[in-house]
Amino acid sequence: MSKLDNIVSLCKRRGFIFPGSDVYGGMAGTWDFGPLGVTVKKKIMDEWWKFFVEDREDMYGVDAAIIMNPRTWVASGHTATFADPLVECKECKSRFRADKITEGFSESITTEEFLNTHTKCPNCGKENWGPIRKFNMMFETHVGAVLPDDDKEIADKNIAYLRPETAQGIFTNFKNVVDAFYPDIPFGIAQQGKAFRNEISPRDFILRDRECSQMEIEYFVNPKTWEENFEKMRKLQHDFLEGVLGLPAKNLHELDVPAADRAHYSKRTIDFMFDYPNGEGELMGLAYRTDFDLGNIARESGKSMEYRDKITGETFTPHVIEPSIGVERLFLAILSTAYTEEGKGDDKRIILKLPEELAPYKYCVSPLLKNKPELVKKAQEVYKKLRKKYGNVTWDDSGNIGKRYKKQDEIGTPKCIVIDFDTLEDSTVTVRDRDTTKQTRVDISKL
Amino acid sequence: MSKLDNIVSLCKRRGFIFPGSDVYGGMAGTWDFGPLGVTVKKKIMDEWWKFFVEDREDMYGVDAAIIMNPRTWVASGHTATFADPLVECKECKSRFRADKITEGFSESITTEEFLNTHTKCPNCGKENWGPIRKFNMMFETHVGAVLPDDDKEIADKNIAYLRPETAQGIFTNFKNVVDAFYPDIPFGIAQQGKAFRNEISPRDFILRDRECSQMEIEYFVNPKTWEENFEKMRKLQHDFLEGVLGLPAKNLHELDVPAADRAHYSKRTIDFMFDYPNGEGELMGLAYRTDFDLGNIARESGKSMEYRDKITGETFTPHVIEPSIGVERLFLAILSTAYTEEGKGDDKRIILKLPEELAPYKYCVSPLLKNKPELVKKAQEVYKKLRKKYGNVTWDDSGNIGKRYKKQDEIGTPKCIVIDFDTLEDSTVTVRDRDTTKQTRVDISKL
Repeated sequence: MSKLDNIVSLCKRRGFIFPGSDVYGGMAGTWDFGPLGVTVKKKIMDEWWKFFVEDREDMYGVDAAIIMNPRTWVASGHTATFADPLVECKECKSRFRADKITEGFSESITTEEFLNTHTKCPNCGKENWGPIRKFNMMFETHVGAVLPDDDKEIADKNIAYLRPETAQGIFTNFKNVVDAFYPDIPFGIAQQGKAFRNEISPRDFILRDRECSQMEIEYFVNPKTWEENFEKMRKLQHDFLEGVLGLPAKNLHELDVPAADRAHYSKRTIDFMFDYPNGEGELMGLAYRTDFDLGNIARESGKSMEYRDKITGETFTPHVIEPSIGVERLFLAILSTAYTEEGKGDDKRIILKLPEELAPYKYCVSPLLKNKPELVKKAQEVYKKLRKKYGNVTWDDSGNIGKRYKKQDEIGTPKCIVIDFDTLEDSTVTVRDRDTTKQTRVDISKL
Repeated sequence: MSKLDNIVSLCKRRGFIFPGSDVYGGMAGTWDFGPLGVTVKKKIMDEWWKFFVEDREDMYGVDAAIIMNPRTWVASGHTATFADPLVECKECKSRFRADKITEGFSESITTEEFLNTHTKCPNCGKENWGPIRKFNMMFETHVGAVLPDDDKEIADKNIAYLRPETAQGIFTNFKNVVDAFYPDIPFGIAQQGKAFRNEISPRDFILRDRECSQMEIEYFVNPKTWEENFEKMRKLQHDFLEGVLGLPAKNLHELDVPAADRAHYSKRTIDFMFDYPNGEGELMGLAYRTDFDLGNIARESGKSMEYRDKITGETFTPHVIEPSIGVERLFLAILSTAYTEEGKGDDKRIILKLPEELAPYKYCVSPLLKNKPELVKKAQEVYKKLRKKYGNVTWDDSGNIGKRYKKQDEIGTPKCIVIDFDTLEDSTVTVRDRDTTKQTRVDISKL
């Protein structure tokens, strides 16, 4: 099994992440967070919110609806261009992303280029392709009481989409936030929430799923100052990813996207790439989006998106620096950094070396033996005391002590505390360290 | 203006809640939380999670995907019965909920009953109705690369729905949670997340919206003990709503739903009703759902949903007690409890008397005069110190002191701290109380 397979297996076995709709055989491209996964996901999202919103005076949070007025996606360009190159095998009718079943091509691959590669159909093995067409990845739905089977013409007017990004929920609220708060510039608006993409081929566990949680900031600046603010945001991302979450700098690579590969409106984009178990992949993006989005909204809505500088009186449409990250990708980066195997055969140990702040539990408390009431009673005392003090403390009296260590290693609990007969005599406990397996005697009062 | 109108207006003006897609003229039934609204919403959700999940040893969290395998909704009965009575005016083609444009009827109103009321069309005033038909409120979408315009037959097999409730994301994970954690019974699985309902007539601000955040628990019990566990859950809801969130008991009414109005599988349901500004409405539901859901899943999936009691060895399909609450309804209950008007004319004061734990800010710090650098400097010192200590502290040096108090009253800040010339002499500040407007001198070190 590959390292990724091992992580997927651990995630299911220990209750971090289950396949979506597992009981019905799954639902491609969706994943459900289990009890331990929710805990870690919440910690990641809370750390981000604290770092980028609560601890800063220049950030404003929003939480916009997932179903937005469809004019949003006309203005943003998603209706016209948020599409992948789809190709259909004329023999077996299977559909694929043309750039994914060939090598060395980007999303802008043409039919001619594709046919020249003489790719065989991954499903039936034949080579009989239709032309490439653009497949829009927005999930479509109908809002209101008229559906296509009633009256297609009316229903078509009620088409709406699940947002493919959280960013537009920020841009569309720009004016409301400015009107309510009159913030000094530069300032940012931040959002966490779900986004949906009808991926033709979801794959790689939670790396390319159809439903993900995004954390995005649109940082509004005076256009003259975009470069210094871009630098500021770039540095902040490293402070968060490495400083707060503990991702190793050596696995994080900045890719300065060349002009030809950037969105036409972006003057600079850095992709933060990460060494995932199955190779390098995108972790987050930092893009200078100019006034592309606010300009689009101004045109589509007929409302001014200008900002008047309180000090200089200068009036302008702010430009935007956008750091954008997916929670699931970040989760996988953290998991694959933490996942460690040590030893071999019967001595093999799987350890999730999560930073203490991200681990589901800080301590696990156990009685050495389950059938000794005096040990259980003392252990419960210690457990209740620590739980009251720290909250994230777990209890484990299943199996023998070795099995408990194994389990706690796998879920990343930094310290196991064991109450034994000596505890009853001298009020000390065994504290066993996850990463070193070293055991030390510690006085209960010093925990 | 009604009290509800005043709350809606305050929410927009002060950045709590904006109409969804406001800049494009809105999107019926959706609302966006602004910077202060996000803060309060997060606090409500965090308090719930802490109270019902983190602080308890019998609760497990999950966070399931919004798009689930469509068999979920066949098994749960939503495909067949999650519908409202829709009636169409043959004259102007407008569509309405039959039970909402008549009085005294429930969702089970028949065409005959409806026609007998001789209701006029609220749009064109005529009386020429088609028959009532059931309108399914699940939002429909297509997953995968084949859409109806390509091939309707294949596309129909790819129909999926936005979940109309979070509950099924819990039930479908029952077996995964049991397999990973072997919990003692009774135990609960909890989830917070979005749910979607294509309401024919969204209305009443955030009370009946198309997209809402739910907080649900499925509490799994031995069928023999359902009554005591129902009581336990009932009491817990009061502890949370009144004890933690401070909702007044006098505005909270339990409605024991009579058998005829209950879902066929429920043996007891209590609707917790709240006195909203525009009348009594549902705040939350507590239902004994028997083994209806696990039984459905077992049938549809062919997998056993039985649980084996670790102590007695008894094997059974657990029964379920479900407390279910919508965050937006709870938000409105809190807002309408807090919203207060005092005085008249120029002396009129709007105060949001939020409990300190739910207010966006704990303190607002101000210099008495903005143009006195020594006051600003001292005030910044105090502000930075308090921000470091408490986090949720805001700065305000706009307008005059009266306007600042007015603004802070409207956003619910319990205390305003003002630095004046005396502060520079004796290190005391004015602390002004939101609810009493009383001002006291306090030594900086005692804040």
